[in-house]
Amino acid sequence: MASGILLIPGPIVISENVQKALGTPSVSHTSPEFVDLFASTLQKTRQLFQAGESAQPLIVAGSGTLGWDMAASNLIEPGAKVLVLSTGFFSDSFAECLQTYGAHVDKLTAPLGGVVPLSDIRKTLGGQKYEMIVITHVDTSTAVLSDVKSISEVVKNVSPDTLITVDGVCSIGCEEFAFDAWGIDYALSASQKAIGCPPGLSISVLSSRAIEVALNRKSQSSFFASFKKWIPIMQNYEQSKAAYFATPAVQLVNALNVSIGEILEQGLEARIAKHHATSDWFKNKLRTEKGLKLVSSNQRVSAHGLTAVYVKKPAEAISALKKKGIIIAGGIHKDIKGEYIRVGHMGESACNDSLCHIQLCYEALSELEL
Amino acid sequence: MASGILLIPGPIVISENVQKALGTPSVSHTSPEFVDLFASTLQKTRQLFQAGESAQPLIVAGSGTLGWDMAASNLIEPGAKVLVLSTGFFSDSFAECLQTYGAHVDKLTAPLGGVVPLSDIRKTLGGQKYEMIVITHVDTSTAVLSDVKSISEVVKNVSPDTLITVDGVCSIGCEEFAFDAWGIDYALSASQKAIGCPPGLSISVLSSRAIEVALNRKSQSSFFASFKKWIPIMQNYEQSKAAYFATPAVQLVNALNVSIGEILEQGLEARIAKHHATSDWFKNKLRTEKGLKLVSSNQRVSAHGLTAVYVKKPAEAISALKKKGIIIAGGIHKDIKGEYIRVGHMGESACNDSLCHIQLCYEALSELEL
Repeated sequence: MASGILLIPGPIVISENVQKALGTPSVSHTSPEFVDLFASTLQKTRQLFQAGESAQPLIVAGSGTLGWDMAASNLIEPGAKVLVLSTGFFSDSFAECLQTYGAHVDKLTAPLGGVVPLSDIRKTLGGQKYEMIVITHVDTSTAVLSDVKSISEVVKNVSPDTLITVDGVCSIGCEEFAFDAWGIDYALSASQKAIGCPPGLSISVLSSRAIEVALNRKSQSSFFASFKKWIPIMQNYEQSKAAYFATPAVQLVNALNVSIGEILEQGLEARIAKHHATSDWFKNKLRTEKGLKLVSSNQRVSAHGLTAVYVKKPAEAISALKKKGIIIAGGIHKDIKGEYIRVGHMGESACNDSLCHIQLCYEALSELEL
Repeated sequence: MASGILLIPGPIVISENVQKALGTPSVSHTSPEFVDLFASTLQKTRQLFQAGESAQPLIVAGSGTLGWDMAASNLIEPGAKVLVLSTGFFSDSFAECLQTYGAHVDKLTAPLGGVVPLSDIRKTLGGQKYEMIVITHVDTSTAVLSDVKSISEVVKNVSPDTLITVDGVCSIGCEEFAFDAWGIDYALSASQKAIGCPPGLSISVLSSRAIEVALNRKSQSSFFASFKKWIPIMQNYEQSKAAYFATPAVQLVNALNVSIGEILEQGLEARIAKHHATSDWFKNKLRTEKGLKLVSSNQRVSAHGLTAVYVKKPAEAISALKKKGIIIAGGIHKDIKGEYIRVGHMGESACNDSLCHIQLCYEALSELEL
C-alpha cells in the first residue's frame, strides 16, 4: 500500500525505522528477546506519559476505543456516577461506552469549539459525588484542547476521591502531559497518532490508586479489557518474565518500541515544542493569510496535533489535495459535519522539517478557493 | 527482531510476502484504496471459513481472546445457560469469559487428551435447554481436535435453537471447517496461527441467526466488542463505503489480505491436506521411531496444526532446540504442565517443503534423550 502524504489525524506517516521494525518476522511472545523488548517498551511508555514506577503501563492489541472499555469496566461499578466533559464526538462516544457498562453519566457539554469552564466543573463536582471524571485531552472531531492540568487541580480541590481519566488518544506525544504531576488515575492512548506507530495497539497507564480500585473490584464486567488480567501480565514482563493472557501483537510492539524511542531521543519536551511550533505556523497561516476560521474558538483551546478549520467546500478541498498526493480528512462533528476539514500534523510530518509536509499542505490549500 | 525457526503454536513463521505487506506505510482507514482492500479481505475471510454471503465476517484489532468477549457479550444475555465442551486450558478460559458476562456455564470436561463423547453431549442437551454451546475446535494446550461437524449434527437434532459457537483459533486454515454446511453460528479465530499473519487481529464470522440475535439484543454488555457496533462497519466496507467505529490496524489487514490470499491460491482443500500430511508425518515419526506418547489420545482426536507430546525433560528439550535455532513451546495444561512439549506446524512451516522446518525439528529432537 502507498499513501502519498498522509495528513489525517491518525493513522499518521511513520518513520522509516518504525516501518522497518514493523516488517519483521514473527517472534515468540514468550522468548527472552521479546520479554526484554516488551519490558523496554513498557518503560518507555512510562516516560512518554511522565509516569513513575508506581504507575502501570498496559500495551494491548486493540485500538484507542478499547481504553474506554478498560476505564468503564474496571474503574467503576455499574450505577457509579461519572462526570464527562464533552468537547466533541469522541467525548460523547466515551460517555456512551461508560453507559454501556452501567455508569450513570452526567455530561457537561462545552460550546462548539470551546471547553467547559472550570467554574462549571467546580460547581458540579461540589454539588454531587462523582466516582470518576472523564476528560478528552484533545477531541479529534473539533481539535479542541482541554486544560487537563487545571481541571485536575479543581478535582483535587473539590472532590479528591474522584478518579481522573484522560483520553489522550490525540494528545500523548504532541501535547504537554504529566501523568504523575497532575495526579491522573488512568490515561489511555492509541499507537497511530502522535506516538508515531501503526494502528493496532491500545496504550494506557494506571495510577497506583487506579490499580488498587481495579484489583479490589468484586465483580468483573469485561474479560479481554480486564485490568485484573492484564496488570500481572505487564508486571511479569517488566520483571523479565513471560506471562500469558492473550497473544501480544509482537511486530506492532517492536514498532512501538522504535517509535517511542525516537520521541524520547528527540526529547519529550523538544518533541512537544516542535508540534506546537508546526501547529502555530499552520494555524496562523490559515487564519492570517487565508482569513479562515478554526473550529477551536481560540489559541488557548487549540490542539497542536491537528487543525480543524472551516472551509466553504470541504469535499472539493479534500479531493483537490488528494490529486496532489496529500490526504486530509473531513469533519465528523454532527453539528458542522459538512463545513470543515481536518489536517493532522503529528509525528514525522510535524517534526521532520526535511519532509516539508505541512508547508506542502499549506501551499496546496492556498491555491484553492477556501 | 529475528527468531530462528519459530515452531510454537502461534505466532508462526510468516511468508516473505506477508512480511512485506506488513512493513508498509500507514494509509488512511477511510481511503478508497483501504476500503477496497478491507472489502477484499472480508470476502476472502468468508471463503476461508466456508461461509456464504448471509454470514458476516468481522476483522477487528485485538487477539483471539477478544472473540470470546464477542460471543459472551453479544450472543447471550446475562443468566443464559451455556454448555462448554472442555478439551483443555483454552476451553476453560473461554468458560471463564462467558461467566464474566453473566452466563450460567455447565461444563462437560473431556478426559485429558480426549474429547467429550457425543452421547454425553446428546444426553446433556436433551435434559436441559442451553442457549449456546461452545466447542474449542483445537485446544492449543492439549492439541486435541474436536469433531465439530458431528457435534453440530447432534445439536441440530436434539436442540436446534442452541447457538453453536466454535473457537477456531488453532484450526481455521489447517483443519477442515465448513461454517455454513455445519450450521455454525459464530466462529472466531486469530491472525497468528494457521492463517499465517502476525498477531494483532481478531477474525470471526457470524451466521444470519447470530446477526439477528446480536442486533435485536436489548441491553449491551460491551462496547469495543459490540456486534451492534461492528456489523454495520463491516457491511459498509463490503459495500465500498468507509465507516468508523474504531481505527482498523491497516498494515495488519494488508498482511492478512496477503496471507489468506496465499491460502486460497494454494486451494483451501490442498492447504488443509498438506497440514494433515505434515502433522501425520511428524506424529508418526515421534511415535514409531522415538516411541513417544502424544497428549491427544488417538489419531481421530489429534490436531494437525500442532503436536503435543510427552517427553522426559521438556525444559531441556526446548533449550537444546533453541541452541539449534528452533523455537518450540512448553506445556500449559495444569495437570501435565512439566511433562510435555508443543510443536507448531502451521502455515509456511507446514506447507513450504523447501523450508524443511518440521524435518529439521524432528532431526533435532531425535538427537536428544526424550
